[in-house]
Amino acid sequence: MPHYSVWAPDAHKVELVLDDRKIAMSSGERGWWHVHDAPAADYGFSLDGGPTWPDPRSNWQPNGVHAMSRPMDHCQYTWHDQQWQGTPLSQAIIYELHVGTFTPEGTFDGVITKLDHLVDLGISHIELMPVNEFSGRRGWGYDGAFIYAPHSAYGGPAGLKRLVDACHIKGLGVILDVVYNHFGPEGGYAGKFAPYLTDRYRTPWGEAVNLDGPDSDTVRKFFIDNAIMWLSEYHADGLRIDAVHAFMDTSAVHFLEQLAAEVAKWARRAPRPCFLIGESDLNDPRVVRRWEEGGFGLDAQWSDDFHHAVHALLTGERTGYYADFGTLADLAKAYRSAFVYDGRFSVHRRRTHGRPVGNMPGYRFVVCLQNHDQVGNRAAGERLGHIAGPDLARVGAAMVLTSPFVPMLFQGEEWAASAPFQYFTSFQDPGLSAGVREGRRAEFAAFGWDPNDVPDPQSEETFQRSKLKWLETVDEPHASMLQWYRQLIALRRRCGELGCSQVGEVEVDFDEQARWLRVRRGKIAILYNLADHRQTLHIEPGRTREILLSSKQDVQSRERYVELPASSVIILGPRET
Amino acid sequence: MPHYSVWAPDAHKVELVLDDRKIAMSSGERGWWHVHDAPAADYGFSLDGGPTWPDPRSNWQPNGVHAMSRPMDHCQYTWHDQQWQGTPLSQAIIYELHVGTFTPEGTFDGVITKLDHLVDLGISHIELMPVNEFSGRRGWGYDGAFIYAPHSAYGGPAGLKRLVDACHIKGLGVILDVVYNHFGPEGGYAGKFAPYLTDRYRTPWGEAVNLDGPDSDTVRKFFIDNAIMWLSEYHADGLRIDAVHAFMDTSAVHFLEQLAAEVAKWARRAPRPCFLIGESDLNDPRVVRRWEEGGFGLDAQWSDDFHHAVHALLTGERTGYYADFGTLADLAKAYRSAFVYDGRFSVHRRRTHGRPVGNMPGYRFVVCLQNHDQVGNRAAGERLGHIAGPDLARVGAAMVLTSPFVPMLFQGEEWAASAPFQYFTSFQDPGLSAGVREGRRAEFAAFGWDPNDVPDPQSEETFQRSKLKWLETVDEPHASMLQWYRQLIALRRRCGELGCSQVGEVEVDFDEQARWLRVRRGKIAILYNLADHRQTLHIEPGRTREILLSSKQDVQSRERYVELPASSVIILGPRET
Repeated sequence: MPHYSVWAPDAHKVELVLDDRKIAMSSGERGWWHVHDAPAADYGFSLDGGPTWPDPRSNWQPNGVHAMSRPMDHCQYTWHDQQWQGTPLSQAIIYELHVGTFTPEGTFDGVITKLDHLVDLGISHIELMPVNEFSGRRGWGYDGAFIYAPHSAYGGPAGLKRLVDACHIKGLGVILDVVYNHFGPEGGYAGKFAPYLTDRYRTPWGEAVNLDGPDSDTVRKFFIDNAIMWLSEYHADGLRIDAVHAFMDTSAVHFLEQLAAEVAKWARRAPRPCFLIGESDLNDPRVVRRWEEGGFGLDAQWSDDFHHAVHALLTGERTGYYADFGTLADLAKAYRSAFVYDGRFSVHRRRTHGRPVGNMPGYRFVVCLQNHDQVGNRAAGERLGHIAGPDLARVGAAMVLTSPFVPMLFQGEEWAASAPFQYFTSFQDPGLSAGVREGRRAEFAAFGWDPNDVPDPQSEETFQRSKLKWLETVDEPHASMLQWYRQLIALRRRCGELGCSQVGEVEVDFDEQARWLRVRRGKIAILYNLADHRQTLHIEPGRTREILLSSKQDVQSRERYVELPASSVIILGPRET
Repeated sequence: MPHYSVWAPDAHKVELVLDDRKIAMSSGERGWWHVHDAPAADYGFSLDGGPTWPDPRSNWQPNGVHAMSRPMDHCQYTWHDQQWQGTPLSQAIIYELHVGTFTPEGTFDGVITKLDHLVDLGISHIELMPVNEFSGRRGWGYDGAFIYAPHSAYGGPAGLKRLVDACHIKGLGVILDVVYNHFGPEGGYAGKFAPYLTDRYRTPWGEAVNLDGPDSDTVRKFFIDNAIMWLSEYHADGLRIDAVHAFMDTSAVHFLEQLAAEVAKWARRAPRPCFLIGESDLNDPRVVRRWEEGGFGLDAQWSDDFHHAVHALLTGERTGYYADFGTLADLAKAYRSAFVYDGRFSVHRRRTHGRPVGNMPGYRFVVCLQNHDQVGNRAAGERLGHIAGPDLARVGAAMVLTSPFVPMLFQGEEWAASAPFQYFTSFQDPGLSAGVREGRRAEFAAFGWDPNDVPDPQSEETFQRSKLKWLETVDEPHASMLQWYRQLIALRRRCGELGCSQVGEVEVDFDEQARWLRVRRGKIAILYNLADHRQTLHIEPGRTREILLSSKQDVQSRERYVELPASSVIILGPRET
């Protein structure tokens, strides 16, 4: 018989509402209400005689955000991953995927059918875009309403457990993307129960989460318990925390620090390493600095600067935030210092941004050539290869996969998938539905788009269009791109010196005019020709053996020189001994 | 011939407006506009052909906030304080005063006439409530409109220089209270020129200052230049920075850190020590932690917890934030740890508050028995002695002046002044005037006050009532209170062990039931009887000699015991050798 609890500190009466009856709840400490040993049935709560709302801590919303919650006993699932010991972040190669579009099925079980592909590719972890229950059946997941409930359309709690279990059996870790900085605009009933939100701060997505106002201890615990639930009950290996820059918290112990400390305390007893990765737009090393140095102690953070430096360089795009990037010097800075903006004036932001990282392991930073945001936040959701072409996509892959940071791929990137990744939603409220459609059009009209060319987020077609087409992987040019990714990943895994190193240890030189760049990592050199013509480049003694070449064209090499095709990269090492 | 400049990044045309003409300004870098060598005359600026507004960086508003600015040449003043070497914070005893009510004149020159009193008292620094130009002639100063301009009704720039000069000659330092977290509601023309404010955050006083949005570099510089101006051009010894908890700044380098670093850089070439003291409600040691430990590096901060612990104990008040205080244990915690709330749940805040200070010098914390806020934010502006009576006021003075932190007094405290310190304003706008009056009434109606008993802030009488009555200092009971303060201060200055020590070094024991508390500081013991009756207390060998006693009643002492009168304190030391 389950125990039902809910936090409603301002209510005078709370009832547990089951299918066929109401049960008065008893008032406990600090605003909690309880019923012990009530029947297991779909349920909700009624405050002060008002309407019935689903449970903010619901583990399962089998019929969506507006319907009743269903109790779930985590012990019902039998795990098979006892042998799994995890892979540390320092050796990780992450693969971001969206459950709904990764396979035709769009479910957790669908993902399971593709795990062999991922094992062959060589990645270490999959990272699932948010799997929490959100409004409708299609969506990116960042508009989560029930953060404890795996999305019903993906297969619910049991489906997620099957997926994690299957990954672990195949030697893959699982990272879950969690959103703690706001609630989605539809189905967010939490605010009806308690002060989860505050109007003292704003986020781009509405009211901020109440992390430092009255009753915030319990709000913080709501998120921290959630993080630990994914790690303990769902065996997740790590969490990616969405938009940590949107946490407004003036507490002496910042929410992120408390989260990291409590997860670390839990993880000390865990059978495998667990880690937290923040998405941060702050360029503030405090996010990943250790506690004893005044940091928040996250294990890693995304470094958008690296992405932007690569993207602007390879595509020539300079709109929006790409205005701050585009030179070889920027990319060199990213290699050397992680942050390109580390106290430098940003034209796009119209202010000085960031501070130097200092001495820190490279695995504190996750870098990518593409991710859901960078692809999906474009009007038409084009991938890098769609913009820059296959040669430069190969070059970009090498830039990420030979970097001293943790590399991350985005679903389908490895075979230059033809499908775009567009912004899709399936809000049920007509006003919201119209709002998101018009908002998207207006956003891109500002960049000169014809509103009719902007895909409608609410349309089923937009979602379908974003699904990967797996059949194309065996055809050219996809098959050879896949081969290139496999080679790069295998090389990174084989050569320790290509993995994560301390920030500041990578040697980079370049010629902005001639458009070549060389990265030295131990005995390996990675030499890029970014010019639109062949050029002859100097190679160093000791690094003359061709290990990998991105181009199918011939490379002319003699003594101390190599003639590289346009838009290509060669990886050179010492003669084999 | 002065050079005129103004920052107006969004203007297309800016004119310098003098009495009798307009001069087109030339556009410089990053939104600055300049005119070189124009006539010295009262001036303002007109943006894009609009109305004329005074200069946000005006050094002098001789006719108030709505009138023209007047250029000022800082070199005109001849300083006489070349011998002044300053007093470090570790040896400071601060005296907070409000220029308008400290003397009948209500001016900087008026303060000069009372410096001998302060020298006799034994304090080291005066701290002036904000002297920036605010709307009207009467006000606390926190509604500043021109932060570079010493208030015209106090005597303007020349008056302030005369006062600082006179202080230095008499061996007193000067701390200025500066308000960088908001602008006053009247006369704040800065926002007309540039994005000084942001609507992304809120403060209790309206829009927050733009410290991390577009163009915030120049906003930050506006405040930092101001801080350095007070130190360099006005020879201030330190600044007290109002409400640092209201700075909303997600930058990787927090505004406070940048401010402290730039002031420190300037101070390296200064002829005397300069320091920054923050008013912080965060209980976050980061505010005063050193940069290398991830701190902001302010020299000190106010510690309200100490005040609240003392006040609640002595008055028995438990309303508002005093609900969190009142036990001897709280005061003992304040002595030992600086923060009472250092990760403890606060009933008043309904959340966990603060974090431990750790190892830090005591002079990082400024403590007081009374200050402008604690007195003036009461409906009737009553001082501690008005509430708790003279015996407990004497006890409170000892608690502050023998503490391991930097003690601060509030004007008139030293003679138990009869004048209250009430909240007064003199806004000129009728709507604002009515708003502040009604707001004040509503605020205290919530605490059960009859609105008619709440003094009208806009009334001249409220201001006059708050003026100190100097003639009373020679009469009882004022004269003996003054004597008590002089003795305590002299003792603190004479005995090094009564000064600032490391946090955690003070030994305190107490009996909550019997209401006695003993503080040990080196060879000195301070023994408090807080009961309402005489009681016999144990004294230790080695600390048996009476150094000071707050009560005029007899003390019975024999061997290892002393019988202390109700509500009294005795300071004991070793036998003289």
